[in-house]
Amino acid sequence: MRLDQVVLTPLKIIPLEAGDVMHAMRCSDPGFSGFGEAYFSLVQPGATKAWKRHRRMTLNLVVPVGCVSFAAVDDDSGMGRRFELGPRSYARLTVPPGLWLGFRGIAADTSIVLNVADIEHDPAEQDRADVGRFQFDWSRPCWPAGDDQRVLG
Amino acid sequence: MRLDQVVLTPLKIIPLEAGDVMHAMRCSDPGFSGFGEAYFSLVQPGATKAWKRHRRMTLNLVVPVGCVSFAAVDDDSGMGRRFELGPRSYARLTVPPGLWLGFRGIAADTSIVLNVADIEHDPAEQDRADVGRFQFDWSRPCWPAGDDQRVLG
Repeated sequence: MRLDQVVLTPLKIIPLEAGDVMHAMRCSDPGFSGFGEAYFSLVQPGATKAWKRHRRMTLNLVVPVGCVSFAAVDDDSGMGRRFELGPRSYARLTVPPGLWLGFRGIAADTSIVLNVADIEHDPAEQDRADVGRFQFDWSRPCWPAGDDQRVLG
Repeated sequence: MRLDQVVLTPLKIIPLEAGDVMHAMRCSDPGFSGFGEAYFSLVQPGATKAWKRHRRMTLNLVVPVGCVSFAAVDDDSGMGRRFELGPRSYARLTVPPGLWLGFRGIAADTSIVLNVADIEHDPAEQDRADVGRFQFDWSRPCWPAGDDQRVLG
């Protein structure tokens, strides 16, 4: 199943008095497919950024600040799956091309998503859809990943 | 002069209601020398992480949260230079191998440094020195870069 291609990889946090070190991505990590660009996407509390589908880009998502709920949707099967990332469940979410992705800030303050992408930003390889395109239930229990849900009637 | 090899590159912040997008590093950026690892280093308010010198790693430092004062020191000339990074003066600091580097959190809350390094972490290519090794004056005015200062008698 296509949603199974979304991979959650636990990451290390090294506690230090002056400030922790938090791993994000190494070129020797399983599944590393090259470096194109690294950028941050901030998410305000309760705000949703959805939906976007990449045709070529593989995303590697890490949330060092706050808490973010990610939703991956497979158009063909009409199924979606939710993942929750933040320092408390510190992990990297790898999203291959072809899946719709949306995310929502679920912390009290601004959350920060780092994307280490394998190609540079290119609007031509992105499809966009309105947030209402899928009937995604963001309220289902999810820690760190939720049950699959039908999002297309 | 060796300190002139430290490069400050202004970066774009794209304002969005749901949460800004903040650039960090692209493989097509001038000076990109490969991807080895990306990791976060948190810095507590007033805490100093110093000194470390890399023999092979080039650091690309970005501060999406808080405010961090960076100090680069050239052992040969005994000179140091300070740089200040944060969302308000949003830029990337590229530090080539061979220079001593230290940094200090100067925000009221935890600051976050992202390092996009061209090689993976390897303790064998790092030299460390106590924070008192150089007489570095962290209090000098600096925005985004300060005047050179003599740090060895």
